[in-house]
Amino acid sequence: MSTVLDLPFKTLRPRILVAPSGFKECADPAQVADWIEKGLRRVMPHHSTEIQTWPLQDGGEGFLDAMVRKWNGSVLETRVFGPMGEEIEGRIGLVDDGATAVIETAQVAGLRLIPPAERCPTLTTSAGVGMLIRKALEETLVTKIIIGCGDTGTVDGGIGLLRLLGGEFWSGGKELKTHLISADLEHIDRIDLSRVHWKLRSKLVILDVVCNIHNVLCGLDGMVRIYGPQKGVKPEDIEPLSSAVDKFAAVAKRCTGMDVGNMPGSGASGGMGAALLLLGARMTDRRAAFHWYFDFDSIMAQRWDLVITGEGRLDKQSLRGKAISEMAMAAKERGIPVICLAGSVERSNNYTDAGIGVTFPILDRPMSTTQAIKRAPYLVMDTAERVARSVLVGWEMARLMDRA
Amino acid sequence: MSTVLDLPFKTLRPRILVAPSGFKECADPAQVADWIEKGLRRVMPHHSTEIQTWPLQDGGEGFLDAMVRKWNGSVLETRVFGPMGEEIEGRIGLVDDGATAVIETAQVAGLRLIPPAERCPTLTTSAGVGMLIRKALEETLVTKIIIGCGDTGTVDGGIGLLRLLGGEFWSGGKELKTHLISADLEHIDRIDLSRVHWKLRSKLVILDVVCNIHNVLCGLDGMVRIYGPQKGVKPEDIEPLSSAVDKFAAVAKRCTGMDVGNMPGSGASGGMGAALLLLGARMTDRRAAFHWYFDFDSIMAQRWDLVITGEGRLDKQSLRGKAISEMAMAAKERGIPVICLAGSVERSNNYTDAGIGVTFPILDRPMSTTQAIKRAPYLVMDTAERVARSVLVGWEMARLMDRA
Repeated sequence: MSTVLDLPFKTLRPRILVAPSGFKECADPAQVADWIEKGLRRVMPHHSTEIQTWPLQDGGEGFLDAMVRKWNGSVLETRVFGPMGEEIEGRIGLVDDGATAVIETAQVAGLRLIPPAERCPTLTTSAGVGMLIRKALEETLVTKIIIGCGDTGTVDGGIGLLRLLGGEFWSGGKELKTHLISADLEHIDRIDLSRVHWKLRSKLVILDVVCNIHNVLCGLDGMVRIYGPQKGVKPEDIEPLSSAVDKFAAVAKRCTGMDVGNMPGSGASGGMGAALLLLGARMTDRRAAFHWYFDFDSIMAQRWDLVITGEGRLDKQSLRGKAISEMAMAAKERGIPVICLAGSVERSNNYTDAGIGVTFPILDRPMSTTQAIKRAPYLVMDTAERVARSVLVGWEMARLMDRA
Repeated sequence: MSTVLDLPFKTLRPRILVAPSGFKECADPAQVADWIEKGLRRVMPHHSTEIQTWPLQDGGEGFLDAMVRKWNGSVLETRVFGPMGEEIEGRIGLVDDGATAVIETAQVAGLRLIPPAERCPTLTTSAGVGMLIRKALEETLVTKIIIGCGDTGTVDGGIGLLRLLGGEFWSGGKELKTHLISADLEHIDRIDLSRVHWKLRSKLVILDVVCNIHNVLCGLDGMVRIYGPQKGVKPEDIEPLSSAVDKFAAVAKRCTGMDVGNMPGSGASGGMGAALLLLGARMTDRRAAFHWYFDFDSIMAQRWDLVITGEGRLDKQSLRGKAISEMAMAAKERGIPVICLAGSVERSNNYTDAGIGVTFPILDRPMSTTQAIKRAPYLVMDTAERVARSVLVGWEMARLMDRA
């Protein structure tokens, strides 16, 4: 079959854009894009097909590396606390000739850093992110810090982060001086932000947060209820933890005058959004990340004959404001077919309306999620090869019917 | 996208042949073909696409129904023993104006009749098949009985079947008069076939066995070693049972003068092949079934633009003489692309050489085999829809590139 399949592409040279999201807890967008390209290349050699990878960076895993690569920046390394208080390597990206720092919350507070068996989010902290911001404030000359949110394993409302930047927390008249974790939330009855880092107070440095703007800290759609379960919060802990978060927001409002609990993005990264809002941050919708920071418009202005995207778990949620739906709609407007690879695909009739012409689940036999994550590179590559071959069968059929 | 996708097919009307095997323990070929057609039809309406289903009947599950449907025959019902000695409904197909009977071993001795938890093949029997043959001999005027083998859960060397047709078995000077099961094999020290049914002895009725000709009763590649595990024979029982089967073949040779243990097809249906050989049966390779009984040549003489096949478990074994490989090679010779749906796909580079252009595993998320079997109708339909959509994306790309 291979000889036949080469045929039509030798003259026409299709252009394929590979633009996947990351697969949560498995691979960042750049890795997935790389696997897809490798799979396609097995049947679509360089001379026959142009393939460009353009990972959908939305602030979560891989955001920092992508920013540094894209803007030709450098990386500053430092030791910080990980989500469970263990010491790990933290990284700060420096772009824009050193004027802008890039921090990724997933890199030091990511769900992937916590082994599934040990997931007890009430014991996790956002302190590492605070340490990264402090390092950027104290040891660089940046005037802007871009903070990418997403894929974290914390739910501490950002108190760990806030204390590291000079926030002071009291409980029953005593100041809390240890690193703060989610379990501390319910005990806090006073907050003082008058001594936060001077570069933030003076607005010398601007915090620019890339996050899911629909993710809020408090209430029925608060981040504990919506995202707690996937971070490992036990069903019986959801309500107590939600109440503790609500109480914390009330204390923050009383002490600072700022009602951040329901502000857009306040629930981002387990509530780090709220803490960053208290520090005067600007919130940017994560979808904007790939418009602003990753040249979406100039990419889409090129001619593409096929867009291949990907998502760990494709469901109705994916169609509501996630990166791949943004991508698919943009392709649809331009009349470009879209194929989406996914670790799992929820049955739905809405994918075509959303611009996704075909879904390709990556599994090749019955297996557990753990096995699927372990074998993901091969599964994604094999599936991309299947995509290429299927498309080529369409071509081959066209040729057969011309004969008839 | 739907408007665009309709376009090319409205003028060209592609012809698609849907020719799958059955999915073992899940669905017979006709069911799978039906699901695939339903999935394709979701995006390929009747006015745009011709679809013909042509299930790959190879003697296993669904063979009887397909023969009756194909040759406009009738069905005779009777009560027989199932694989575990329970009473079940047995069926005999009558075709060729009542001159030929059709029996399917899977229908009364099938693996699917035994719940996975109760699979203890040493306690199962082929008696039901013997009862069906006896019924055909005694209550009809057929001159030929076609026996389709495959997908059985028995390993009794056919002794259950043989005793029902007049074979006599002795152990230590005493005749065994109960229904025989695998566990009896090792005790048999004498066989007497002089009183088998007169219609068989006189060759008034011919037995025509459709089976895997490569499946033999004895030796290193004997049916217990090769097929025992998938029928539920425990690892520790393989060798004792193999020895018992070998001993039985030796006894049969001594008593009848026929050395059936290594004859082609002797291992078919857990050794029923050997018993049928002792009764003078002609063995036909199962691949021949869809040539002889199902008009393969006239089907393939038509114009097809795509062949969609299917197999429960696609692996290197599938490429060695199984029905789908016969189908794929025939399509390849005619330059027709082949897509294969499968419950699981072993990674291999040989599928394209064998004529299979693309493999489509049906799973849409991590799940167990049990779940996959339960959800098979939906999984197959959804995957067929994916196949249709992928092929249409190929068309759409062709259109896009014409524009450029």
